[in-house]
This record gives sequence, C-alpha cells and structure tokens, in this order.
Amino acid sequence: MLIETIIKSTGNILRSEFEFLKSSSMKDKFDLVTSSDIKIEKMLIDYIATHFPDDSIYSEEAGSIGKASNRRWIIDPIDGTSVFVFGVPYFAISIALETENGIEEGYVYNPFSEEFYHSSKKDRCSYLNNKPIRVSRTSSIDESLVAFGFSADKTNIIRYLEEWGNLMASCRKALPLVTPSLTICNVARGRIDAYIDFGSSMEGKAAASLILQNAGGRISGYDSSSFDFREKGHICTNGNIGVEDYRTVK
Amino acid sequence: MLIETIIKSTGNILRSEFEFLKSSSMKDKFDLVTSSDIKIEKMLIDYIATHFPDDSIYSEEAGSIGKASNRRWIIDPIDGTSVFVFGVPYFAISIALETENGIEEGYVYNPFSEEFYHSSKKDRCSYLNNKPIRVSRTSSIDESLVAFGFSADKTNIIRYLEEWGNLMASCRKALPLVTPSLTICNVARGRIDAYIDFGSSMEGKAAASLILQNAGGRISGYDSSSFDFREKGHICTNGNIGVEDYRTVK
Repeated sequence: MLIETIIKSTGNILRSEFEFLKSSSMKDKFDLVTSSDIKIEKMLIDYIATHFPDDSIYSEEAGSIGKASNRRWIIDPIDGTSVFVFGVPYFAISIALETENGIEEGYVYNPFSEEFYHSSKKDRCSYLNNKPIRVSRTSSIDESLVAFGFSADKTNIIRYLEEWGNLMASCRKALPLVTPSLTICNVARGRIDAYIDFGSSMEGKAAASLILQNAGGRISGYDSSSFDFREKGHICTNGNIGVEDYRTVK
Repeated sequence: MLIETIIKSTGNILRSEFEFLKSSSMKDKFDLVTSSDIKIEKMLIDYIATHFPDDSIYSEEAGSIGKASNRRWIIDPIDGTSVFVFGVPYFAISIALETENGIEEGYVYNPFSEEFYHSSKKDRCSYLNNKPIRVSRTSSIDESLVAFGFSADKTNIIRYLEEWGNLMASCRKALPLVTPSLTICNVARGRIDAYIDFGSSMEGKAAASLILQNAGGRISGYDSSSFDFREKGHICTNGNIGVEDYRTVK
C-alpha cells in the first residue's frame, strides 16, 4: 500500500520534530510547529502528485493544488497542533481520497502509538495495524464513555455545558479531548462509545469518518443532520446508541 | 540507575496492555485496566522491596506496605487511567522517594513517547532522557500556554470557569489536560508555562513536583498556599510568572 509507506515515514519525522520542539518562547514554538506542518505537508503533496498526477489535492496550509479532478486527496499534516505544542503525543497525520461518491479511502496515523488506521469504501471494513476493528457494543448511556471536543475557550465550554450537561452527568465517563482524527478512530475501534465536537475541521475528520462507518459506527452533523465532512463539527456513535439518545438524555 | 531499569521494563508491559485493551464492554475495560494497574504495581513493589528492604512503600491500589521508615517510596503504577481507557497514550508510571526532608528522588515515564524524567534533591537538576531540562522563559500572561486539569465533570467545569475564566480568555492558549505527572513535567521542560488542577492526587504529583522545582519551576497548593504534595490540587508555573499573577488576571 503506497499511502501506508509515506504516512509512516513522514510520521517518523513528525515524531522527532515533536521530541526536539524546545524553545523558551511561545511564539517560536508555534512557528516551529508551523514549519513542521509545512515540511510534512510538502512531502505528502510531492508523493501524491508524483504517484497520482491526475488527481487534485487539498491541504490545510497549501490549500487547493493541481488540476480539477473528480479525485481529490485531502491532507491534514498535523491534526492536533495544540496538543503537539503542549507536549502530548496524541496527534496524527490524516489522508483521505474523495471522489464523486464521497470519501473513498481513509488513512490516519499516530506516530507515537504507531497506530495506523485505514479503510476503503469498497472494502467495507476498517483496520488498525492491518487487523479489522469494530465499534463497541455498549447500548446504554450510563455505560457510555463519551469524548467532547472542547478546548478551554470559555464560550465553547459554556455551550457544551448547556447542550450536553445532562449527558456529561449521566454517562459513565466523559472527557474533553482534541484531535478529531484519532478520537473518531477511538470510537471506530470500540475504545469509546461516542464523540461530540462542534468545531472539528474537514481535514481532521474526512479520513476518520470513513474508518468509523466501515467499523459499524455512525456519524452525523453536529445538529444531528446527515453527515457532510465539509461542515464543521460532528456527533459520532457506535451505532447501538443513536445520536438522538445522546442528545436527549435527561 | 536501578529505578530507570524497572520503570522502563514495566512501561513496556503497560504499553502492550494499552494496545491490547479491547473489549466491547465498558465494565470489562475498567476491570482490565485495574488488572494492568495491579500487575504493574506488584512488579514495582517487589522490585523496591527487594532492593530497599528497609524502606516503606505507599501505592495507590495496595496502600501502605512494609515497616515504618523515614524512607518511603510513593508509587503510581498508571497516572492517567481514564485516558488509558479512552485510547490516549498520555499516561505514566510515577515513582517518588520521600524522606524526612520531603521528596528526595522523582521518576516519571511515558512508555509511548519514551520520555523518562528524573531528578534528585541533592543533584538540584532535572533530566529528560538524561539531558538537563529547564522551564520556559515566558514572562507575560498573554504569551502563556496554560493547562487545566478538568475532567468533564459539570461541577468541576463550572468551578474552573468561575475561578479561571479570565485567565482562559487572556492567555495565549488554554487546554484541558489530565495526567498530572506528565503535565507537571511539561511545565518543567518548558513546553507549557503553567498548569492548574484542583483534583490532582498525591501519587500523581509527588515525583513530578521535585522534577519541576529542580528545573526552575514553582509549585503551590491550589489555594496558593505553600506546596504539600499530600494535599489535593496544585498550581505550577515556570517561576517567571507568579501564581498570584495567574490568579488575579483581569
């Protein structure tokens, strides 16, 4: 598999850049991460442009590249920039292939835990390190492990409390988590049961949404509408408990 | 160094238990983690009891072990149990040696990022993978990266918002993080500038508090009192910005 090779080799670079990110100035730190971001992005773009010369590419920093095509690669060189800066090894490289039928292939890689997730639409199965994965079988709210995507922005937090306070109080355990790609994959592999985020970006969830669906999970828009990965936000569940069950918990 | 050997070998076991924690039931998952916790704890206790037969030991699951002594080893076999369950590789093994002079030695190890922190009181320096570390030089609130220890418990979140809402809105970036041992060490190594948590346990911060202080940082109680690692909660800073500066930001 071509993509596996490039995503793992850029992952190794990202890993060493994370380890050596030391600087006493905050501004420098963010500049360094941006420079890692651009370096990784360039490698991924070069690879895809070489191997799939007829396809177009969309990437976070570089924007749209290449001729118009009904095959488009969506790249997130570092999903989880803020935790990268804060020193938490929970970030990923995410690559998705979009066609006129939606997301066709998805790849997510955490270079620290060496978790490589992938799925393709025609395969109808998802894999973690080449072994099939499935969502959890949890079927009650009070047994659910639920991730919320809030950062520590005061307005966001108040919004989560207002909209999800009952769920937080009723589920088995709720945790604030960032990095949509990996957290959606943690629903896909059955580690957690749901994940709610109103701020997730297209690049961070394009690949993971296919991985989740092919592992038996469901994903909707944040307003419970049908899922469009181009829109901000999402609600992921294991499919045994519906979005509406989570939304309306008393 | 004896402790480095045992902490790394138990870390490798913990890493593989994390990877293979798969179960469709929430209850099973927590039981499995508890069983990892007890297994790691037993290995650490056996090691210390063999090599330091005159010392006493305190560990989270096992409680107090051994004869009364003015040398006590404080063990946290998994700091960050909830993120372990949720699939986030940000947990650590923490070991501290306490004497009548306070924490004498501290060791913290993340088996995924292979970050091994240690410090000893007499050495007056702290190390990450055997290289000296220092806190950041950030000296203004608006450049500060600040971690908050809140889980998604509604009461906790409201308390953080009331007490720290101004700081969250004024600092460069705030993030909710768990795992006190590693997050305190991220202040010690200069990755972030402050870390505020009212719930941190003794076992999770005993070792890291020495690592922070010997890297130039400061730690106080959550109420800004002088630090006692036996009390819940803490405020850590790089020492360039004081606890009171963070507390009173408008």
